Amino acid sequence: MAGNSFGTAFRFTTWGESHGPSIGCVVDGVPPLVPLGEPDIQHWMDRRRPGQSRFTTQRREPDEVKIVSGVFEGVTTGTPIGLIVENVDQRSKDYSEISEQFRPGHADFTYQAKYGIRDYRGGGRSSARETAMRVAAGGIARKVLHHILGKDISIRGALVQVGPHGIDRANWDWAETENNPFWCPDAQAAGQWEGYLDGVRKAGSSCGAVIEVVASGFPAGLGEPIYDKLDSDLARAMMSINAVKGVEIGAGFEAASLTGEENADEMRMAGNRVDFLSNKAGGILGGISTGQDIVVRFAVKPTSSILTPRRSVDRNNNEIEVRTKGRHDPCVGIRAVPVGEAMMALVLADHVLRQRALTGKV
Amino acid sequence: MAGNSFGTAFRFTTWGESHGPSIGCVVDGVPPLVPLGEPDIQHWMDRRRPGQSRFTTQRREPDEVKIVSGVFEGVTTGTPIGLIVENVDQRSKDYSEISEQFRPGHADFTYQAKYGIRDYRGGGRSSARETAMRVAAGGIARKVLHHILGKDISIRGALVQVGPHGIDRANWDWAETENNPFWCPDAQAAGQWEGYLDGVRKAGSSCGAVIEVVASGFPAGLGEPIYDKLDSDLARAMMSINAVKGVEIGAGFEAASLTGEENADEMRMAGNRVDFLSNKAGGILGGISTGQDIVVRFAVKPTSSILTPRRSVDRNNNEIEVRTKGRHDPCVGIRAVPVGEAMMALVLADHVLRQRALTGKV
Amino acid sequence: MAGNSFGTAFRFTTWGESHGPSIGCVVDGVPPLVPLGEPDIQHWMDRRRPGQSRFTTQRREPDEVKIVSGVFEGVTTGTPIGLIVENVDQRSKDYSEISEQFRPGHADFTYQAKYGIRDYRGGGRSSARETAMRVAAGGIARKVLHHILGKDISIRGALVQVGPHGIDRANWDWAETENNPFWCPDAQAAGQWEGYLDGVRKAGSSCGAVIEVVASGFPAGLGEPIYDKLDSDLARAMMSINAVKGVEIGAGFEAASLTGEENADEMRMAGNRVDFLSNKAGGILGGISTGQDIVVRFAVKPTSSILTPRRSVDRNNNEIEVRTKGRHDPCVGIRAVPVGEAMMALVLADHVLRQRALTGKV
Amino acid sequence: MAGNSFGTAFRFTTWGESHGPSIGCVVDGVPPLVPLGEPDIQHWMDRRRPGQSRFTTQRREPDEVKIVSGVFEGVTTGTPIGLIVENVDQRSKDYSEISEQFRPGHADFTYQAKYGIRDYRGGGRSSARETAMRVAAGGIARKVLHHILGKDISIRGALVQVGPHGIDRANWDWAETENNPFWCPDAQAAGQWEGYLDGVRKAGSSCGAVIEVVASGFPAGLGEPIYDKLDSDLARAMMSINAVKGVEIGAGFEAASLTGEENADEMRMAGNRVDFLSNKAGGILGGISTGQDIVVRFAVKPTSSILTPRRSVDRNNNEIEVRTKGRHDPCVGIRAVPVGEAMMALVLADHVLRQRALTGKV
Repeated sequence: MAGNSFGTAFRFTTWGESHGPSIGCVVDGVPPLVPLGEPDIQHWMDRRRPGQSRFTTQRREPDEVKIVSGVFEGVTTGTPIGLIVENVDQRSKDYSEISEQFRPGHADFTYQAKYGIRDYRGGGRSSARETAMRVAAGGIARKVLHHILGKDISIRGALVQVGPHGIDRANWDWAETENNPFWCPDAQAAGQWEGYLDGVRKAGSSCGAVIEVVASGFPAGLGEPIYDKLDSDLARAMMSINAVKGVEIGAGFEAASLTGEENADEMRMAGNRVDFLSNKAGGILGGISTGQDIVVRFAVKPTSSILTPRRSVDRNNNEIEVRTKGRHDPCVGIRAVPVGEAMMALVLADHVLRQRALTGKV
Repeated sequence: MAGNSFGTAFRFTTWGESHGPSIGCVVDGVPPLVPLGEPDIQHWMDRRRPGQSRFTTQRREPDEVKIVSGVFEGVTTGTPIGLIVENVDQRSKDYSEISEQFRPGHADFTYQAKYGIRDYRGGGRSSARETAMRVAAGGIARKVLHHILGKDISIRGALVQVGPHGIDRANWDWAETENNPFWCPDAQAAGQWEGYLDGVRKAGSSCGAVIEVVASGFPAGLGEPIYDKLDSDLARAMMSINAVKGVEIGAGFEAASLTGEENADEMRMAGNRVDFLSNKAGGILGGISTGQDIVVRFAVKPTSSILTPRRSVDRNNNEIEVRTKGRHDPCVGIRAVPVGEAMMALVLADHVLRQRALTGKV
Repeated sequence: MAGNSFGTAFRFTTWGESHGPSIGCVVDGVPPLVPLGEPDIQHWMDRRRPGQSRFTTQRREPDEVKIVSGVFEGVTTGTPIGLIVENVDQRSKDYSEISEQFRPGHADFTYQAKYGIRDYRGGGRSSARETAMRVAAGGIARKVLHHILGKDISIRGALVQVGPHGIDRANWDWAETENNPFWCPDAQAAGQWEGYLDGVRKAGSSCGAVIEVVASGFPAGLGEPIYDKLDSDLARAMMSINAVKGVEIGAGFEAASLTGEENADEMRMAGNRVDFLSNKAGGILGGISTGQDIVVRFAVKPTSSILTPRRSVDRNNNEIEVRTKGRHDPCVGIRAVPVGEAMMALVLADHVLRQRALTGKV
Repeated sequence: MAGNSFGTAFRFTTWGESHGPSIGCVVDGVPPLVPLGEPDIQHWMDRRRPGQSRFTTQRREPDEVKIVSGVFEGVTTGTPIGLIVENVDQRSKDYSEISEQFRPGHADFTYQAKYGIRDYRGGGRSSARETAMRVAAGGIARKVLHHILGKDISIRGALVQVGPHGIDRANWDWAETENNPFWCPDAQAAGQWEGYLDGVRKAGSSCGAVIEVVASGFPAGLGEPIYDKLDSDLARAMMSINAVKGVEIGAGFEAASLTGEENADEMRMAGNRVDFLSNKAGGILGGISTGQDIVVRFAVKPTSSILTPRRSVDRNNNEIEVRTKGRHDPCVGIRAVPVGEAMMALVLADHVLRQRALTGKV
């Protein structure tokens, strides 16, 4: 009810603030006998870790994850898995100013309006630091998915637009996402973004981004119509990531401009399995997976913390100017890539277990 | 778990198929002592009713809603409200052909893959007929919202794009939405759409659409971070509507192309209340309402049932051609407008009650 | 949140009042391809139907159940099953007196306190009439359990105490439960109860009862520690039945008086399966089924509607005397037997599906 | 779905095993601005702490609770509260024997049957150590209840039976519960129990107990019919405590032996409020609180770990004899008293928030 849990059969609950002693989560519903150790999770944490390039926040966090329950002798036991990450780099600073101010584009004003109080240190609960635990839980979800569905599945994310600059899809190469600090699948675009983002950073400005996440190798039949459709749950999942303002599946908003002839994916047989001749649907029809690639995209707004002074108000209804000091993150969308992948894994793990409940098999 | 319910504190569950004897829903969590009668619901049902113009399906349904529980002497009692609508125009026809075929772009294939069976008559459970009950439940949500928040709130939807043709926002006039068969707020665009849609209809083709829903007058503080954020729940809600492929809040995908300076809404005082100087955020920051207009848009794909033959397969893995016969709906997006409004009302009613649980007030 | 649903993976939601036009429920999470028709449900409805002996309420209800969704060509489709039962014998009478009075032992006072309103006709939502839908949903649960677990399972209930008169367990014969109007497994006790209950009835008084429900043939492994243990869910289920004041598992309250030696069930091998030498645990250890008989008992208080005048108050804080008129049910516990069986079936169906989600098998 | 959470509006989720590094919980739905510090929780933890008398387990745990999120500057923020307790006294020992054995009366067999694996060290997840986190969460629930309802409420527990020896209710004095190691309200009984329990302990045997928990000062109107009735939730809550085999409300099982005249509590006015002349109902009618004392009792079975050898089997289907070594707890029921109090507080906090959601007030 209070919103800090996600999922039904595979369900995780996160806790912790940006500047508290630690953050953590509980993952409940993990099937037993799944091989799991801290390195399985740490691998994904490291992809999201801040401070890895000059294009993301300079907060220095080792983000070492500890498993504190639910694993015994190297495998899961079916009991809840507790994960904890210590907060290390809560840079001590004077918060007296910001404690009274509402920064434009931040959650300062709304947290105050909702709760009548907020932990203003580093954004408190509204900080993107919380997404570290999504990535950790997502690492468990991946292990569960492989345990049930085998090795031939993958969940991969890429940055497909930075500011107004999109990629050329003809250049798409998943391998390239590991070769640049943007998870960009188009090497040429990545080169151009570097210059663009340096400019944004030096100007003390910021820009938005679009992320695409693709899940391959998943069976048809996942998703629970009417209200827990696979696409509904993906939309909810991605929209819950900090700064996300839009989500689309397959052709997405472009589908509105297509004709019925252009949009509906035709089918043929490929040997003894159904083959779709296109994937405008993004792998989901009627809220249920088709067996094709599941494709979701989401838009991240530009970081609201910028060096230009902005008009705002404070808690005492004074009109003020706000200018962010300290660490600055020109494009928060970059680090949203591993978070989007994690949310995809978490949604799919949940629906695999739900399909198993309903039909006894996946 | 099985997906036919929506909401937490204000929760509804729908049942029924396109060609069953009736459809219905149960709405649980309705506060007591809210004045409610069938006309309060029927008003909204009539807006969605099929067969009201040549641009929507010709199925003829009176869609008369009956309240069968939860209301006594003209007010709600706090117990679950049962609603039933008889299906009247289940045109008898021969389903032997379609029973074996998978129509491209429909849920035929995925329902079969998921359940191993499907009610193929009129799409069964996957039919947009189910949305009638959302509109009915939405009528109750509206009454609850007015009961708690008073008269000065509104939830209104409009069609802002048909096929590739968008409106001119300079022409926006809410009153116009009642003057054309498209809920179009731009009279000029509405005129152009008429010709365009006649062409689509006569060609036996179809087109997509974009709908915008705006909730005005709602207080700041609604939404439950982290996973039940107001925007997450709206994304889930809109994506659960048949044929929706994308959802965005405020500036949405366009936000990715903006700079931080352009995107963050500045604040000033207007008398003793906070006034935002723009609404790129769509009325939601950190997943919590700001008190501004709450603005959501969603894209509906073109109807998959078209007169042009399309390549597909059947249940026995034969390659076939499918051509839709009978009633044809050139733009399902039109009738999605009242459904989108209803989902907005349902999400808001839920979050108003949840905020009341958490803080004792709204 | 508002309390009219039960279960998680196998979940039902009921609606309707004693004197409304109809009552019904939605059952969500029913696996597809389970053979199901109205007679499968009606069979169990008929066992609970009022007016079948002079020892239960004389309300005359045919209780004909209609399936309105979720079943197609004789099998379930995996979509929600809607069930409706018309209310026929809502005897018209003058409610003006009772509308203002709080009857001792009834929910009149508490419904008024909670909701500020109540449908006073026949108890409204608080009437045991609601249990008809539990029995209907329970009929579906039984079909699902047989579909998954086969024929060699059973769920049976019996009345083991009426007023102060218990059965002699040495006489227990399940076949006898069908031979007397009390579901009594001890023919001799049944004979004595007849005289006792005639006396109670003629005196215009009432008495309580204890019901025992036994589920046989279920596998070990059902139940989700820590908070959705099988016994926790059974306790919740049985306590939710009208007039129930106590629930116990296996040895129950008597276990408090036993020593550790007496209470813990020893184990031996019987061929290649584990055999327990006693069943003090009632088939549940650590909240998980052992594979033995699952045994639950619950106590029903005496009907509060009696002919003797009782002191009470009315809505206007006047002190009054209340004396029930009209139909009188000397022992509501009798008709609780099929309801208890249904709740057992519903809990087990839920846990079978949940175990399937977690481990992929039952 | 996987069972490690309790509550809806006020919801907590626990994690951790008996011999893991730590145990903890997340409490979600805590209203903001409630004063809360670690001592508020520690106070209740200390009441449950093991090793405080010779009659309970000799495990030595300081049980120091740490708040790691959700509290800022001495008050709650409305965000999830993380609590962690280090496990200190996980006595290192050789588990090779017990790892293969199923102890009679324990959850060894059922955890193995359900999950195919179990953490056998000290009972793993099935250990009563988990209840420490219930008491911690219960401490928060108490603060919330006082914040909303004021000071004049109380939740108190007492041991009313040890083995076959009950108290004399005429001697009931709440103050006495603090004067003996049994939370016994009857000083005379407490004296007798001391001798009795010394005998049980020296014999290496064990005995059961009955606990009564009473909540005073709570308003009428709490509880959500039909399936989340206040008594249903209390039954579920208490039955989820380790070793509990029975739960009853008010007159409980004794109600079955009463007549309608004896059982229904009459009402009169006491000034301008309704006064019940007895409390057979245990403060709950129709699943909703009446405003009287809420009275629940539950039975705890005797500890299964005893020194007498018992017949059992092992994982390889060998017939064996099992005899518990090491620390021995003659009556686990004693330490269930603070746990039962905590569960009462947790259920009431949940229902207070739910009533607030539904009606806007408590």
